[in-house]
Amino acid sequence: MGLRTGDQYVEGLRKRKHVEIYVMGKRVEDVTAHPFLKPSVKSFKATFDAAFDEDTRGLARAYSPFIGEVVNRFVHIHQGPEDLVAKVKLLRKLSHKTGTCFQRCVGWDALNTLYIITGKIAEREGRREYVERFIEYLKYVQKNDLALAGAMTDVKGVRTLRPSEQPNKDAYVRVVEEREDGIVVRGAKANITGIAVVDEVIVMPTRAMTEKDAEYAISFAIPLDTPGVKVVVGRQLNDSRRFEEGEIDGLPYMFNHEGFLIFEDVFVPWERVFFYKEWRWSGVFVEVFSNYHRQGYAGCKSGLGDVIIGASYGLARRLGVADKPHIQEKLTEMAFLNETMYSAGLAASWEARKLLRDGGWWVNPMYANVTKHLVTRFPYEISRLAHDIAGGLLGTAPSEADFKNPELRPLLEKYLQGVPEFPAEERLRLLRLLENTSISVAYLIESVHGAGSPQAQRLSIQRVYDFQKVEQIASSLAGIKTAMAPDLKVEPHRQTDSEK
Amino acid sequence: MGLRTGDQYVEGLRKRKHVEIYVMGKRVEDVTAHPFLKPSVKSFKATFDAAFDEDTRGLARAYSPFIGEVVNRFVHIHQGPEDLVAKVKLLRKLSHKTGTCFQRCVGWDALNTLYIITGKIAEREGRREYVERFIEYLKYVQKNDLALAGAMTDVKGVRTLRPSEQPNKDAYVRVVEEREDGIVVRGAKANITGIAVVDEVIVMPTRAMTEKDAEYAISFAIPLDTPGVKVVVGRQLNDSRRFEEGEIDGLPYMFNHEGFLIFEDVFVPWERVFFYKEWRWSGVFVEVFSNYHRQGYAGCKSGLGDVIIGASYGLARRLGVADKPHIQEKLTEMAFLNETMYSAGLAASWEARKLLRDGGWWVNPMYANVTKHLVTRFPYEISRLAHDIAGGLLGTAPSEADFKNPELRPLLEKYLQGVPEFPAEERLRLLRLLENTSISVAYLIESVHGAGSPQAQRLSIQRVYDFQKVEQIASSLAGIKTAMAPDLKVEPHRQTDSEK
Amino acid sequence: MGLRTGDQYVEGLRKRKHVEIYVMGKRVEDVTAHPFLKPSVKSFKATFDAAFDEDTRGLARAYSPFIGEVVNRFVHIHQGPEDLVAKVKLLRKLSHKTGTCFQRCVGWDALNTLYIITGKIAEREGRREYVERFIEYLKYVQKNDLALAGAMTDVKGVRTLRPSEQPNKDAYVRVVEEREDGIVVRGAKANITGIAVVDEVIVMPTRAMTEKDAEYAISFAIPLDTPGVKVVVGRQLNDSRRFEEGEIDGLPYMFNHEGFLIFEDVFVPWERVFFYKEWRWSGVFVEVFSNYHRQGYAGCKSGLGDVIIGASYGLARRLGVADKPHIQEKLTEMAFLNETMYSAGLAASWEARKLLRDGGWWVNPMYANVTKHLVTRFPYEISRLAHDIAGGLLGTAPSEADFKNPELRPLLEKYLQGVPEFPAEERLRLLRLLENTSISVAYLIESVHGAGSPQAQRLSIQRVYDFQKVEQIASSLAGIKTAMAPDLKVEPHRQTDSEK
Amino acid sequence: MGLRTGDQYVEGLRKRKHVEIYVMGKRVEDVTAHPFLKPSVKSFKATFDAAFDEDTRGLARAYSPFIGEVVNRFVHIHQGPEDLVAKVKLLRKLSHKTGTCFQRCVGWDALNTLYIITGKIAEREGRREYVERFIEYLKYVQKNDLALAGAMTDVKGVRTLRPSEQPNKDAYVRVVEEREDGIVVRGAKANITGIAVVDEVIVMPTRAMTEKDAEYAISFAIPLDTPGVKVVVGRQLNDSRRFEEGEIDGLPYMFNHEGFLIFEDVFVPWERVFFYKEWRWSGVFVEVFSNYHRQGYAGCKSGLGDVIIGASYGLARRLGVADKPHIQEKLTEMAFLNETMYSAGLAASWEARKLLRDGGWWVNPMYANVTKHLVTRFPYEISRLAHDIAGGLLGTAPSEADFKNPELRPLLEKYLQGVPEFPAEERLRLLRLLENTSISVAYLIESVHGAGSPQAQRLSIQRVYDFQKVEQIASSLAGIKTAMAPDLKVEPHRQTDSEK
Repeated sequence: MGLRTGDQYVEGLRKRKHVEIYVMGKRVEDVTAHPFLKPSVKSFKATFDAAFDEDTRGLARAYSPFIGEVVNRFVHIHQGPEDLVAKVKLLRKLSHKTGTCFQRCVGWDALNTLYIITGKIAEREGRREYVERFIEYLKYVQKNDLALAGAMTDVKGVRTLRPSEQPNKDAYVRVVEEREDGIVVRGAKANITGIAVVDEVIVMPTRAMTEKDAEYAISFAIPLDTPGVKVVVGRQLNDSRRFEEGEIDGLPYMFNHEGFLIFEDVFVPWERVFFYKEWRWSGVFVEVFSNYHRQGYAGCKSGLGDVIIGASYGLARRLGVADKPHIQEKLTEMAFLNETMYSAGLAASWEARKLLRDGGWWVNPMYANVTKHLVTRFPYEISRLAHDIAGGLLGTAPSEADFKNPELRPLLEKYLQGVPEFPAEERLRLLRLLENTSISVAYLIESVHGAGSPQAQRLSIQRVYDFQKVEQIASSLAGIKTAMAPDLKVEPHRQTDSEK
Repeated sequence: MGLRTGDQYVEGLRKRKHVEIYVMGKRVEDVTAHPFLKPSVKSFKATFDAAFDEDTRGLARAYSPFIGEVVNRFVHIHQGPEDLVAKVKLLRKLSHKTGTCFQRCVGWDALNTLYIITGKIAEREGRREYVERFIEYLKYVQKNDLALAGAMTDVKGVRTLRPSEQPNKDAYVRVVEEREDGIVVRGAKANITGIAVVDEVIVMPTRAMTEKDAEYAISFAIPLDTPGVKVVVGRQLNDSRRFEEGEIDGLPYMFNHEGFLIFEDVFVPWERVFFYKEWRWSGVFVEVFSNYHRQGYAGCKSGLGDVIIGASYGLARRLGVADKPHIQEKLTEMAFLNETMYSAGLAASWEARKLLRDGGWWVNPMYANVTKHLVTRFPYEISRLAHDIAGGLLGTAPSEADFKNPELRPLLEKYLQGVPEFPAEERLRLLRLLENTSISVAYLIESVHGAGSPQAQRLSIQRVYDFQKVEQIASSLAGIKTAMAPDLKVEPHRQTDSEK
Repeated sequence: MGLRTGDQYVEGLRKRKHVEIYVMGKRVEDVTAHPFLKPSVKSFKATFDAAFDEDTRGLARAYSPFIGEVVNRFVHIHQGPEDLVAKVKLLRKLSHKTGTCFQRCVGWDALNTLYIITGKIAEREGRREYVERFIEYLKYVQKNDLALAGAMTDVKGVRTLRPSEQPNKDAYVRVVEEREDGIVVRGAKANITGIAVVDEVIVMPTRAMTEKDAEYAISFAIPLDTPGVKVVVGRQLNDSRRFEEGEIDGLPYMFNHEGFLIFEDVFVPWERVFFYKEWRWSGVFVEVFSNYHRQGYAGCKSGLGDVIIGASYGLARRLGVADKPHIQEKLTEMAFLNETMYSAGLAASWEARKLLRDGGWWVNPMYANVTKHLVTRFPYEISRLAHDIAGGLLGTAPSEADFKNPELRPLLEKYLQGVPEFPAEERLRLLRLLENTSISVAYLIESVHGAGSPQAQRLSIQRVYDFQKVEQIASSLAGIKTAMAPDLKVEPHRQTDSEK
Repeated sequence: MGLRTGDQYVEGLRKRKHVEIYVMGKRVEDVTAHPFLKPSVKSFKATFDAAFDEDTRGLARAYSPFIGEVVNRFVHIHQGPEDLVAKVKLLRKLSHKTGTCFQRCVGWDALNTLYIITGKIAEREGRREYVERFIEYLKYVQKNDLALAGAMTDVKGVRTLRPSEQPNKDAYVRVVEEREDGIVVRGAKANITGIAVVDEVIVMPTRAMTEKDAEYAISFAIPLDTPGVKVVVGRQLNDSRRFEEGEIDGLPYMFNHEGFLIFEDVFVPWERVFFYKEWRWSGVFVEVFSNYHRQGYAGCKSGLGDVIIGASYGLARRLGVADKPHIQEKLTEMAFLNETMYSAGLAASWEARKLLRDGGWWVNPMYANVTKHLVTRFPYEISRLAHDIAGGLLGTAPSEADFKNPELRPLLEKYLQGVPEFPAEERLRLLRLLENTSISVAYLIESVHGAGSPQAQRLSIQRVYDFQKVEQIASSLAGIKTAMAPDLKVEPHRQTDSEK
């Protein structure tokens, strides 16, 4: 049936053949045992376990009309606004369990995007081959509960040039050969979340295109162990600590990872090609995907915000200041900022749009962009407040090794203690947790750049907001009869949408 | 049937007897003809016309199960989340028509609050007299489509003292005599929106109380022309201009008004008393009402934001700068801030709670408070950006009278013109509109204080957010076993909730 | 000697002949008696009285080496950093006395700018006629302690076109005829502070120019009663209240005014022409002036901030909440924001630059722009906090007339009272003061647009900050050898500097 | 003479005996060779080299009247406002050379504080033993150009209790024995900047005290190799990378460190005791020191801001987007925020106060607090903007080891390249620099907590701002005669000043 346990997922990773993954310059044999990637495996695994854990199974399961079975929600095609709402609620809960990004959303959003784009091409242009291939693929994914990554962001070379204008022709992933049984692709995708710990990856175009860019307008899915696929895992803050022993400093937490995905002339069979030279649809593709992904941030980042607020409150209690007015002021501000992000995501979900005749439930694009744009700002503010509450020790606390040194331990226990009922070690644990969540790639940089940079959301908001209409409203109130504004909306070429 | 036209409403106002209303020290005979109050009548009237206008009738009508008829939504008891959503959507549209507060929400929210409070007392304590009286009153209101004000905020004397502790015993409205046929009340309510142009007013308690405050824990409804009721209308920015002639400077716009409502030993018959000495329920009363009202701000203030953005965009076009990057940056920021407020209100509506066995649909308290708290901040930022775009002329533009002076007019037309296709007068009209919306009591001060001051929302957010739970989440991630936080939540006495 | 009393200034205004001033469409005979302009006269007058008042005479007097006498600082040429520091300190104190803009800075800054520009042309190009004419004029101004306005902002027509490209050739003030004894000018200047209550006005160019714009590159000074000069006074928030009787609502405060200054072919004799067809120096002219003026905002706006903080604190005391933590939090934030603006202005003064061989003390351009840019933001935030503290009554308080109505007065005194030791009338007075300062053209719109819009400061900051150098610093730390950044600085054409 | 070279400083560190320093649980033999501490030694060393480098020697040297020689400014007693200005200017330049905190300010500020406090006790109470001992010590420090740390922050136990009330009597450093030749102290100080790489440390009290706390009111200086002194160096973000090989990822940068300083019954001879049981002066001590230190942040943090802006601009150029309006907007905003912090610090310096009859030049307390309070906010905003410009790769870039893997290198060079003229490696180098500056303890957490938490500055601002006076100003403008505000200023007990 369409539900794997977390252990089955981990087992599956071990069965991948020939995956070519590099961490800090060295090839990794087993991602599930590697100190750098294990925390990432654990976090991804949580998405499978969620379908069995009592407190999340209601949210994490959904009935798929495609295979007539219950599936893990992370491979589900949204059947209505309630499904979109369930998405953000599930993501918040999963952040509570992982304390980081669990990396399975991009693939999920890619599935829903392909469902709409292939469906739309069928509806509008009568060409059904894409949607048919995709539905077959979807069934396969759902039946096997696959772990998917999604790869959109090209490396992009000179940012101001289109794919076909680049000095480096491979600056965007492209088709270098068309064969009877499929295509051969070359190029690289950057910032690919969770890429080393998935079964398959769905590749998508990253911007609007013109006819000259047709060879770049492609989308397909392949297993990660396809020949010619290379993954170079990126660095993270504090990553070297993962190689330390110990259960406090040695980063016992889960982490996400992101990586560089390189295609060295990789063959993709036709049945896995869902979009080919469809440059006209490329901008829409990016828009549909981005907004799905922007909505999701409401859930995962507010969940991470909860962890940070919780750690801050815990530290305040250990210092005996949790009831001081200025501390309560800060805690309340953090909660306010956090819930603002979340509520925008709920609005983006409840006010969903149906893009296909028989479904294709998409988020509300205005509120999805509002959500993500808030997420590009508020986490830095929440972190700042958390650091304020935590005290300077957040940046100066001794190491776990100091704490375990028998000569130092009694001194540190004596001097790190705040309110007597809490052991000093708890304070140290909360400080380390706060350090590694509030100052993490997942909470800061990813909040800025995931699902498109701040500027991408601004362009979307500018397109979606109806300036013409509001000028008419104002003109009417001002007693002006004739003012009709030309359309402020820029050409929907979308190219900046996924640009950083 | 339960729907009046705007004209019928205005006609109704004229039929009120003996209303004792003062504007700038003088008694007003006919509010519908008075220059100070006419703009307020027009704005209130829009809520009636909405039920007939093509673009709003869908939203502005609702079916009432109480009288088995279609009623104006402004007297409707919400039957589910969709009704709460319809509320904010309707309010946004009405702001587009009025450019100001239309003053009918407080009475509406009071009806829904009384429905829940009287219903709750019946459910919990078996006492049904309140709910029965209220349902009778509700039917009367719905059948006659009455214009209602709601009066909550007492004058409060020394803010830090409870009603019974005040040096001035009448600092909160109270019962001074209990008679067989009813009660006699004394005191005053401040900041009462729309009070001079309604048929009736619903009076509510303004804070949590103790047993000693029992005589202050009352709620009732009376016609505005009840003997002993005095209304002193408050000043507004630019109000004296209403007495000027002219169609540009003479404030041809609609406006809201707020007033002081004084009860000089006013008799209220029992059938209009819905809450009497129920001090235990007083805090809950305030909370239920406040959150209804906080949710509503998402609609009206974002609608007003649209007007301000529209005027700013119109001015930018007239200066020829609408396509400059820094202007688009500002317009986009305004739209972003505006939609953030709105989306929080949508979340507060969709995530509604059912408080009674058979209904009693209430907003989500977290998102309602988030909504209002955003509204206490963002309008000042939107105004600042609007002023930036509009240019310094916003504060220095000549008067309409200058413009109409035949000697000056050609000079002003010549020198005030920006882009040639737009007459200079249009620029002047948009400047005046922007001045009187972006710098208005409705958009600034009311955004801060309506439905409770910022601090009231902060206390609510602090109560609703579960700090204990998030500390447990953080502790669990940090490997701490035992940390159980005592409840941060302060005693739910609510007294600060409606304080400034 | 070079010092007039305030009364002498007022007397001087009455002696002006033929001034053609319009207020609300009507010609004004005596500005010192007109309800609309009297508050402005009083505020300007304070700059004269300051030279005699005990608490300000030390700051308000300076020794002029040009006439060998003590002069009012408002006509002084800065002789070193201490003079620039004295400027901002004096302005802050004067705001305390006036509660508004006192309107004499623009003329003062114009004098200092002309001293530098004419001096610079002499130093660089050997042409001394401008500086000689100017020094003669300066002596005349200092000896007679004249009240000067400065007029820079042209009406500008289509913002994106240069003067010579405009469809309306008079969109910028220009020379239409050159005669043996002088020039004839035509055009209009907008937003001219204090223009109706001065003796003379100094006209300046508003932007960088090209050779084609030469006829627009002019600066001169003329008495306000020169034939062909028309002044149309602009409206202000709440302005109509000035026509009311009464000492509370009738705006007993001082106010500034700004106006439209129209030149209908006005003759200017050569000895009053200080800059003629000097298009190459036009951009620098604007830059020198703007930065002087931006520095000054540190003083006047922080002084106004003090008034607003004082009124807020006074109201908090009257409600009995001045010691509540959240109120103290807000008061402290207001003080912090206010002192931030002020300290930037002090830095701009102390870090002055000497532009001429023998003086020409100018402000530091980076910190002057930082000062003004802070001023475009923080007053809105300070106002918001003031409104928060003041309570909703700020937007709903009854009128003075209500208060004086014998029937209403006892009721209002009873119900408006907070802490018993303060009469209700004091609360009303503080509310009106706060309304008319925190929501005034002087504190909001002028803070945004005076001395150039926010965008003008941003361009200046971008020009002054050395991006090239900091890239080198970063490159060196990163171990990059060769990175030399091309100059980010945009062409110094300055045209946006004094734009809207 | 009183000037050592950097190399002499390093040599001096090697000559310390018996220092007991722990890093990650292990005793460190030679701090100058230890991978964790070497970057810190280099940064501290820069303060010595500055006195010889051509571009800084003018700022870094000063003439000491105490020893009649030129000394390194870092051991200089300020002789006037110019010295205070030179301080912030020097600190900014040193940040450019180090890219981090150079750790010598605390000791410097401690010297100046002791000069004032001991001098003040002599002036006010006639007791000259402290000042005499201190001057002797000062001469010794100046002649030998010692590297000093300053230790103020006690571990503080339960934050809400005074020293004498703590369950742990050693929660604040205290005298446990008084001997004929000196005192014996016990306790610990936290967050001590640069502690492992100094010659001596000056210990100071951390809060205002009462008579019962007398044994805690002490200040003294001792060499770091005094028996009983233990240092436990704290962790930093990314610290484990220092153990990696390599010149890009292996953190080739300088870093600061902070540590835990433990006194296990350490003997201090009387000649090194500068303050003993002087509980009455303890609050003032903290205030004098804190404001010195708060002023300094203007220099070092704006210098660090320059590095971050430079790296961001360099990255924008490598992506080809440096001239895009939204990128320029962000760069300009960063510069504006950065210069705001700096200009407040200049004001704090120029507006210095003289606290002793013969000197004792102190900063202006209002502007020093404004400076530091800005520093607690703006770096987070600057970092956010830097991350926005840098792109997502900031959090996902491959490692140096990947880059050096011969198989991966050509691929990474191909795909990481932006604008062709810049090698991909430069981009990687700038990304790592930006990661390790914009997300560092020095730029974020230290900016919040150094020299006292944000709340400490707020209390100072509240004390220094004259609320009483501004209420009088407002009352006078409002026509209120009698309003005299009681003093808002809280008791100057100072205890919160150095609290978090």
